[in-house]
Amino acid sequence: MNKNRLEAFTDGVYAIIITIMVLELKVPHSPTLGSYVEMWPVFISYAVSFLFVGLNWANHHHLFQTVSKINNRVLWINMFNLFVLSLVPFATAAMGENSFKSITVTIYASLLTLSIIVYMVLVNLLCRVHGKGSAFSNQFRGRSKSYISLCLNIIAIVISIIGFPKVAFLLIVLTSFAWFIPNHIFENRP
Amino acid sequence: MNKNRLEAFTDGVYAIIITIMVLELKVPHSPTLGSYVEMWPVFISYAVSFLFVGLNWANHHHLFQTVSKINNRVLWINMFNLFVLSLVPFATAAMGENSFKSITVTIYASLLTLSIIVYMVLVNLLCRVHGKGSAFSNQFRGRSKSYISLCLNIIAIVISIIGFPKVAFLLIVLTSFAWFIPNHIFENRP
Amino acid sequence: MNKNRLEAFTDGVYAIIITIMVLELKVPHSPTLGSYVEMWPVFISYAVSFLFVGLNWANHHHLFQTVSKINNRVLWINMFNLFVLSLVPFATAAMGENSFKSITVTIYASLLTLSIIVYMVLVNLLCRVHGKGSAFSNQFRGRSKSYISLCLNIIAIVISIIGFPKVAFLLIVLTSFAWFIPNHIFENRP
Amino acid sequence: MNKNRLEAFTDGVYAIIITIMVLELKVPHSPTLGSYVEMWPVFISYAVSFLFVGLNWANHHHLFQTVSKINNRVLWINMFNLFVLSLVPFATAAMGENSFKSITVTIYASLLTLSIIVYMVLVNLLCRVHGKGSAFSNQFRGRSKSYISLCLNIIAIVISIIGFPKVAFLLIVLTSFAWFIPNHIFENRP
Repeated sequence: MNKNRLEAFTDGVYAIIITIMVLELKVPHSPTLGSYVEMWPVFISYAVSFLFVGLNWANHHHLFQTVSKINNRVLWINMFNLFVLSLVPFATAAMGENSFKSITVTIYASLLTLSIIVYMVLVNLLCRVHGKGSAFSNQFRGRSKSYISLCLNIIAIVISIIGFPKVAFLLIVLTSFAWFIPNHIFENRP
Repeated sequence: MNKNRLEAFTDGVYAIIITIMVLELKVPHSPTLGSYVEMWPVFISYAVSFLFVGLNWANHHHLFQTVSKINNRVLWINMFNLFVLSLVPFATAAMGENSFKSITVTIYASLLTLSIIVYMVLVNLLCRVHGKGSAFSNQFRGRSKSYISLCLNIIAIVISIIGFPKVAFLLIVLTSFAWFIPNHIFENRP
Repeated sequence: MNKNRLEAFTDGVYAIIITIMVLELKVPHSPTLGSYVEMWPVFISYAVSFLFVGLNWANHHHLFQTVSKINNRVLWINMFNLFVLSLVPFATAAMGENSFKSITVTIYASLLTLSIIVYMVLVNLLCRVHGKGSAFSNQFRGRSKSYISLCLNIIAIVISIIGFPKVAFLLIVLTSFAWFIPNHIFENRP
Repeated sequence: MNKNRLEAFTDGVYAIIITIMVLELKVPHSPTLGSYVEMWPVFISYAVSFLFVGLNWANHHHLFQTVSKINNRVLWINMFNLFVLSLVPFATAAMGENSFKSITVTIYASLLTLSIIVYMVLVNLLCRVHGKGSAFSNQFRGRSKSYISLCLNIIAIVISIIGFPKVAFLLIVLTSFAWFIPNHIFENRP
């Protein structure tokens, strides 16, 4: 099985998910500065989701660059990954329109958590496909950033449920930005 | 004629169809758990359609991997295949918004049936293009899964018309999952 | 300048144009057979536009297959071609929602006419870029199908303006189907 | 790191941004010539945004054609570039629906200005990645068109704020068309 067309299809879906979210930004009825400023929950939600999907794509891009073989199972975990991400525009709109009400942030944080789990399953599966001790698998030995971000997202779910959705959302944002550090370190490795 | 650009265009259309369906998930007006739980028909419809289009793409991907020549007729049957699939988001929204009312499930099941027929026509045409006895054609000898899923979908149409649309929808879901078995067997062949 | 990325971008835009039109198919409010049957003007408009954009893509695909060099002017005529086509979903929705009222069919026919003119300008430009007498240019010598379909579309505009929009639409449909004949003949040439 | 998949993803996002803007063109309620003519602010906004995104893509295309290496920083500036552009459909709809009210033109001009700044940062970064004195960097020596268009867009913001939004919009349009000249000169260089 050839990885190129899977990458092409996956890139297409990522590109559409990240872009159609903008359709949820509805033009306010009165053309005043105030009405645009009032849209801040919608804008912030949009920006964070753009960042999250962008990060996810960048990770996927790094992951598949060294992939040499795929199989049907990889194809379907990848498809499930896209399914989870495809719900991000809906969860983003729900959170933005309701100004970070508890239930909407809980759904948003749960979706992101599920997305991280699915991504980790995909990495694990690819490691098994390439074999323990292969160049591909060694790359992913001891990478704890996925586990940390998973834990922080689960904490965000709890914080949102007990009634502090805005704190939970802030934690999600910080977790997202944390992803920028390891990628850089990874890149500077000889 | 070159198959690469046809694949690229087809992948683009598949990626958009599978993703824009999420635009039919409208954010409920009140931010309560109950209003999200009430959306289950819309979510289930979305998930099943995502699965169906995903399966269809995976089959198309397997099919075209071994294709060595195409012609204008292949291009147009492929285009008609995309046309039928492009109606899936509409049929999905109709079924979800109306909580599996008979007429909407009948339309949905008919569309899926039509899609399977068009796919079979495409496989047949490609077999003729590559010639009887070619490596491509031998691959598709005696594959009965298409016929079985076609029959089950036609049965679903009948069940829906006589007044049991939810049973019909369940049959469609089971038929979709059945596709996972043969692909696996196919893959393990030497 | 490299034609591959221009083709990739163009394919992406074609794929999106042909697919987002389905978002204009609004689910009817009452789930009865009658309300779906009443949607026929919307469905027919959708199907014809899908066919038109599909034909346009197929022609573009054939055209660029033999292109060996492009320049900035080609890039911008191609971009204008995409701009004109990007208005097709709007014109289609206008025509479908208003059941082929005169003004909407006139706009639709005018858009298709403009699209054919832009396509002819693109072919001419590419012939000049490749040079008179080149293999590329000889391919397009004496091809009258573009002129005929251009004339028929202009006649459709006139028929729609003088008050017979449905006749005009029928003429557009027939003109579209006429494109299938020359492509086939073209293909069978030695 | 490989530039091909970054280009493919970027092309996908550009293609979607440029195309989904058409979804903001709502079909007028009454099918009369007058109601379509009244839509001119929406149409003009759409056309200018299509031109701007198209120009941006063409520049990106020229830029990456000679790129030989990218890194994580390039990936993320490119992602931010896409984020800014993804807001263009929203800003376009706001400006069109409100017939060029001051606040909407100010937002639109600001977004375009930000987009030009991000693009200049991307070019600078790529020059640094390829090294001073490299073939890539020499290409961009002394190119003043970016600075001029940046200044003109900032002037447009000011003009719009002090109460002449339509004049500001006209300046944006003229600035966009000015981009066509240097690309041509660039192309004819030996």
